[in-house]
Order: sequence, then structure tokens, then C-alpha cells
Amino acid sequence: MKIAIIGGTRGLGRWIAQYLKSKKFEIVITSRDSDFGTKIAREIGVEYCPDNKKAASQCRVVIIAVPIEHTEYVIREVAPSLKKGSLIMDVTSVKEMPSYLMQDLIKEGVDFLPTHPMFGPRIRSLEGQVVVLTPLQKNGWFKRVLDFLEDEKVRVLVTTPKKHDEMMSVVQVLTHFAYISIASTIEKLEVNVKESRKFASPIYNLMVDTISRIVAQNPYLAYSIQTQNQYANKARSAFIKTVKDLEKDLDVKNQDKFVEAMSSAAKNLNDLEAALGRSDKAISALNQEIIILKKSIGKEVGLRHIYSGKVHIGILKSLEPDFLLLKTGKRNIMLKISNIEILDSKQMWNWKINNQDSREYDISAVFPNSSDSKVISSVLESLDGIIQVKILDTYQGPPINEGMISMTFRIKVLERTKIKEVEKLIKGFGAKIR
Amino acid sequence: MKIAIIGGTRGLGRWIAQYLKSKKFEIVITSRDSDFGTKIAREIGVEYCPDNKKAASQCRVVIIAVPIEHTEYVIREVAPSLKKGSLIMDVTSVKEMPSYLMQDLIKEGVDFLPTHPMFGPRIRSLEGQVVVLTPLQKNGWFKRVLDFLEDEKVRVLVTTPKKHDEMMSVVQVLTHFAYISIASTIEKLEVNVKESRKFASPIYNLMVDTISRIVAQNPYLAYSIQTQNQYANKARSAFIKTVKDLEKDLDVKNQDKFVEAMSSAAKNLNDLEAALGRSDKAISALNQEIIILKKSIGKEVGLRHIYSGKVHIGILKSLEPDFLLLKTGKRNIMLKISNIEILDSKQMWNWKINNQDSREYDISAVFPNSSDSKVISSVLESLDGIIQVKILDTYQGPPINEGMISMTFRIKVLERTKIKEVEKLIKGFGAKIR
Repeated sequence: MKIAIIGGTRGLGRWIAQYLKSKKFEIVITSRDSDFGTKIAREIGVEYCPDNKKAASQCRVVIIAVPIEHTEYVIREVAPSLKKGSLIMDVTSVKEMPSYLMQDLIKEGVDFLPTHPMFGPRIRSLEGQVVVLTPLQKNGWFKRVLDFLEDEKVRVLVTTPKKHDEMMSVVQVLTHFAYISIASTIEKLEVNVKESRKFASPIYNLMVDTISRIVAQNPYLAYSIQTQNQYANKARSAFIKTVKDLEKDLDVKNQDKFVEAMSSAAKNLNDLEAALGRSDKAISALNQEIIILKKSIGKEVGLRHIYSGKVHIGILKSLEPDFLLLKTGKRNIMLKISNIEILDSKQMWNWKINNQDSREYDISAVFPNSSDSKVISSVLESLDGIIQVKILDTYQGPPINEGMISMTFRIKVLERTKIKEVEKLIKGFGAKIR
Repeated sequence: MKIAIIGGTRGLGRWIAQYLKSKKFEIVITSRDSDFGTKIAREIGVEYCPDNKKAASQCRVVIIAVPIEHTEYVIREVAPSLKKGSLIMDVTSVKEMPSYLMQDLIKEGVDFLPTHPMFGPRIRSLEGQVVVLTPLQKNGWFKRVLDFLEDEKVRVLVTTPKKHDEMMSVVQVLTHFAYISIASTIEKLEVNVKESRKFASPIYNLMVDTISRIVAQNPYLAYSIQTQNQYANKARSAFIKTVKDLEKDLDVKNQDKFVEAMSSAAKNLNDLEAALGRSDKAISALNQEIIILKKSIGKEVGLRHIYSGKVHIGILKSLEPDFLLLKTGKRNIMLKISNIEILDSKQMWNWKINNQDSREYDISAVFPNSSDSKVISSVLESLDGIIQVKILDTYQGPPINEGMISMTFRIKVLERTKIKEVEKLIKGFGAKIR
């Protein structure tokens, strides 16, 4: 099936193009900039088309992934070119405008599905991500898209365009606006953020991290979200009024009113206990990591880059606040702690088995003939550092003494020294190595 | 050594009293309410004294843990009663006022140490917590307190009262004010927070959790922090101006100015990449937990309550968004997911060893006399489900055949069935059980 991504060269559009390509769809991307479009298409291995209408006319699914402010124009542009039986989707952060626009403009026999993926282009997999759908009719294409998303383990939420936009006026408009305001105030106060982190509790650090995350987003997208959602003004006005009211309570030292406002807001957030529990756990997970690293200095550790997935295994030489030094082979490498996660011993072992050269050794030994070769091989295989033990051969008869049995095992290891441990164990049980 | 906690019946004061008692100090707490003071003193097993001056006069260390607005009064009240060679500390969230007040009022031969513990009374241990000290002189008591805190693995930060209060005008005043404003706005917009969480990305959920955490704090303490820090007005005024400026940029559709403000604020936060990495890891730790629970339905799991430390082991019957159902013995219990953490297999095993009844069984078997009883016992001990294996006895001579040796092991297990596996292994290696 061929899918057109209108605006598939950047951000979420590009991410969708790459993702659907990895799912074996035939993809065509468009872009107004033909040099850039050609370049990106080559990079991700898809087709480039300079003409939105032409791309749309060739495909069974057309996904509009341009900035919100161009969405109306592009829907109007491609609507007449859509094939009978095809589907058009948009992935913008507001849903009322594109939903009703598509309803008005789309021809008989073409389906449309307004969509809002609640994630950015940094994610590695769709599993557990939220996608909001605001279908005006639940037609055949709706069910196909739903099945696809559910197969990808997406948490799909189906609602109305109005409900979506109202919710987003809090989930995105209010929180982004407040967080950008906090970050901008910190800048104006000329506070050294890095130093302030040293003064603070882990929760402050997590707060600064989430604020950083919001302001690190694409500012043009943030601007669109603030200006295109029709409930945005209401949300921001309520925020500004609240800020002024609270400031006034403090200014006139009206403790009762401040306490009442805060308590009432807390009550409205409901299930504070769960929020405390979850944030405690998040903090504890981050602290736990540092504790494990401190204990591992001088020892072998396995570290995986959280974005690239690349694994580094080596001796942890030292730990600084932001970086660590790892000795891998003869090289020392610096890794940024915030970008790595620690492999547990099982993960590290599995990585080694799959990535390091293994060797095989054969060992023959003579056991009493009541011995069970399967029991012996499984005990040997359970030793630390043994990859696999195969029974190659069992033999009774000359030159093996009466009442005895010779067994040969093929033992797969990463390090030759492990064979010594296998021999020690076999001898310890009274068998004789041949 | 005897320590007085002035205002040791509630909040952080009470926490300090309990903590220092567990560290074997002799503690006296005071409170204006003598019924309540007597009750709390009995609950935590310390002395109660109704008179601040009397309590202070008896102790080598006096810790002022009353609300900020009463701190000045209490310092003035107890200062004349302090013994020569004693130490007075305060633990309020502002440091300029109490530091210079103590400097003025404290007699020759008494030390004072202004202190700000950057944690609340919910923490379980001091390890990794931050405590800010703003000593005006680094005297003998300063070094003793520093040593004590460092022994407790506290991250101690020594700075000036001015620097502390300036930092707190951002770390506490600005963030609390903004977060309380967000929470109060959500209340006014009449948004169902629980429903909004379903619409949102994991980062929004973490944001709501941290906002909840701030507004769930003691509102009287929050009010004091907003009103007692002399840089608070500057921080809040800067915030209000920023909010208004950004709103104006949006109102007049000045995209360039909004984008510039946001980009510049982002740049100032420095090392956004690390913030993204850490918050991604925090989110992933929370998601990971749900993935593990989903895979464990129908299986045995070990769950620890994150606050009480109580462990529940049982079969995971079902999983709802907020709760899970665990079958322990014949009872089904509901547990709140946000309050529990999952034990790994090693933690679960250790808990069982320490909390469940174990049994011991003796097994004798005849091995070739070249066998090594230590190797055999260590292999047996490494089997899953075996707590301990002791060599009770080794014996050669009649009735044991020539060239053979009898060994007796004492095997400690939780379940009798494990003994069968031990026997299977011994037989599998060709030995004969007697």
C-alpha cells in the first residue's frame, strides 16, 4: 500500500515516514523545498514528490503533517485530488478546524480521520504511546487504522474534536505557557540553574528537567499550539487571573485566602497520594542508578545509550557529576550519565553472548554408570559464564572400566578460564577426566 | 547527649525528634499545647517539656523547628537560657533573618548554626538528601554537625545566608508560586484531571504528579516561604511580568518575539540534553513497572509498600489502572500500584528466607573417594530454592565400599519438594543415596 506524507521531511512527519517505511509500506514524501525533500527522501529511502496534489492522487492514504497554520491550505489543495476509496488524515495538535474542514471538502467515497499523536519525533517505539482520534464517522478506514495502532500497542483514545481541543487547552496550552514563563523568569532573574540544582531536593531537579523538556520543544510548534487552539485564550486568561489573585493575597498578607486557594486546588487534583507515590518512585529510580554506579567503580559494567541503543561494556574507572569514564579494551571513553542506562547482569551476559566471540571445548570424563548425562550437562550449563553444554557422546565398554560410563560434553564459553571451573566441578563429584 | 527540639510535635520538628532518637540521642520536645505535646512525646518515646526556656537550659543542642513566623520570637525567648558550650540551630526555609538574629542575641561561648534541610517529613532516610548550612563562623560545633551529616550520607552545601535566600527565591518561591497557580487554574477551568491524564503523554502525567506534590504540601509552610523570603517579591514580580509579556506576544500574534523568548529561556537552562535524558529515564522507570506487572499476571510476585516497607508476596490475580489484586494464602488483597515497588527475584528470595519458616533435611550419599565435599555442597547450595547446605560428616571405612566415601549434608529449604531436586542431582552424578 502506498502512503503520502505531505510535509514528511521534518519533525513528526519525517518520523511517520520512517516508521511506516519500517512497517513495509511504500512511502512518498512531499516538501516545498525540492533539494531538501530529495535529500531527506534519499536518507530515509523513500520516494520524493514535489507536488502535493500529484502525491495525493497516487496514494491510498494521505497524511497531512505540515505545521498547523498551513494545514487548512494543504487540505484545500489536496482534497480534489484524493482517489475514491482513499483515506486522508491530519496529525495536527488542534482537531476542530481540520475535522470540520475535511468534512466539508472531502468528496463522496473518500474517508477522513482527524488524528493527534501525543508524542514527538524522539520516541523509539509506538508501544504505550497515546494517539487521539476524533472521527466524525466510524467508517471502514477508521477500523483499519484502529487495528493497526492497537497492533502497535498504542493507547488509542477516541473522542470528539471539541472535547479534544478543550482538553488540550489544559494539557498543552496551559502547561506549556506556564512552564515557558517559569523558564523565561529564571533567565531574567539571572540565576545559575546548574548551581541552583545543588541547593535543591530531587523533586526540584525533576521539575527543572520537565520544564527544560517543554522549552526544548520546537518553539514554532509551541507558538502554533498557543495560537490555534480556540480555547487557549480562556485557559491563559484564567491562569493570568489566578496568578494576579494569588499575588494579591500574598501582597496584603491574606494567609487564609492563600491557604484556602492552595488547599482547594490540591483537593481538585484528586489522588494526591498516587501522585506522591509515582513521583517518589521516579526520583528513586534516578537515585538508584547513581547508587549502583558508585558501587561499581573498578568493576565491569554494561551501559546502554538510551537513544541509540548502543551498548558499552568495560571497567568503570570514575564518576563525575555528569559524566563517567569507562575503560573498554585499551580505550577510555567518556559517557554522559543522563544518556545511559545500566544493564543488569543478565542483560550484560545476553549482550556478550550475542556480540562477543565464543569458543567451544570438549571434555570427556568417566562417571559411575548410574549417572545421568542430562543432569550433569544441565548443572554445568548453570555455572556462571557457561553459554551452552551439549552432550556429544556417552560410551560404555573397553577401555572404560566395568560399571563406569564415559561422557563427552561440548562446552561453549567466552573465556577459556571457565573450563577450569567445569573441570573442578566434574572432579569434585568424583568423576575422572580422560 | 541531650537535644531539645523546640516545636518537635509536628512536621519536620517531629521527624527530627524521631530521627535523632533512633540515633540514640536523649531528646526533649516542647510545644505550647501541653496535652498534644505529652501525647506525641509518649508516641515517639521522648521527654516533653512545656517550657522552651527550661528545655533549652538543660540541653547541649537546641534545635528551633517552629514555623518561620514564630522563629524570631522563639530565638529571642531561648537565647538567654542557653548553656555555655551549647549549640543552637534553626531549620527554617529562610536563612538571613535567623542567622543575623542569632549572631546578635547569642551569648559568648554559645555556638549557632543556621540550617535548612531541603526535605520534608516524608523521607525515610537521610542518605542522598540535601542540607544547606549557612554558618557565620566555622566553629567546633560546625565541624561536629558536618561530620554527623556526612556520616549519614547527607549532601551538605555550605553557603552564605544571602546566597541561600536568593537561590530559594527561585528553587522554592518561584516554582511553588507557579505550580500552585497552575493547579488553581485547572480547578477554575473545571477540567477533570483524571480524564485529562488519559489524553496525555507520559511527560504530562509526570508534570501533574510534580504539581500535585507541590500543592499537597503544608499550605501554611508554603505561605511562609512566599512571605518571609526577602527576594520573594522580586521573583514573583519577574514571573508576573513574564507571563504578561508572553501573553501580549501571543495576543498580537508576534511569533518572532514568542519564539525568541522561548529559545532564549531554553538556552539559559543549559544542558537540555541531560534534562531530556533524565526525564526519559524517569518515565521509562514508571512504564517499565507496568510492563513487568502485566507480564506477571497469574504468577508469584513480591511487592513492597514504598512508605511502610511492608512486603506482600502472592499470586498477581489482576491489574486495574490504579490497583492490583494479589492472592496471598487464602486472602485476596487490593494494593494501590502507586504505593508499591516490585521486588526482583533475589529480593523476593531474601525476604522469604528471613520471613518464612525453613526446614532442614539431612541427606547421606556415597561418592567416589576422589570427590570433594566442598564442591558438592556449593553446587547443591547454588540450586534455586536452597537456602543453605552444610557438610555434617564425611566417612570412609566399613560398611562403605573400598574407594568410596560417605558424605552427609544438612540442607535448609523452604519447601520439602526441593529435596527431591537435590536427590535427583546427587543421583545424576552417579552417587548412591543411603
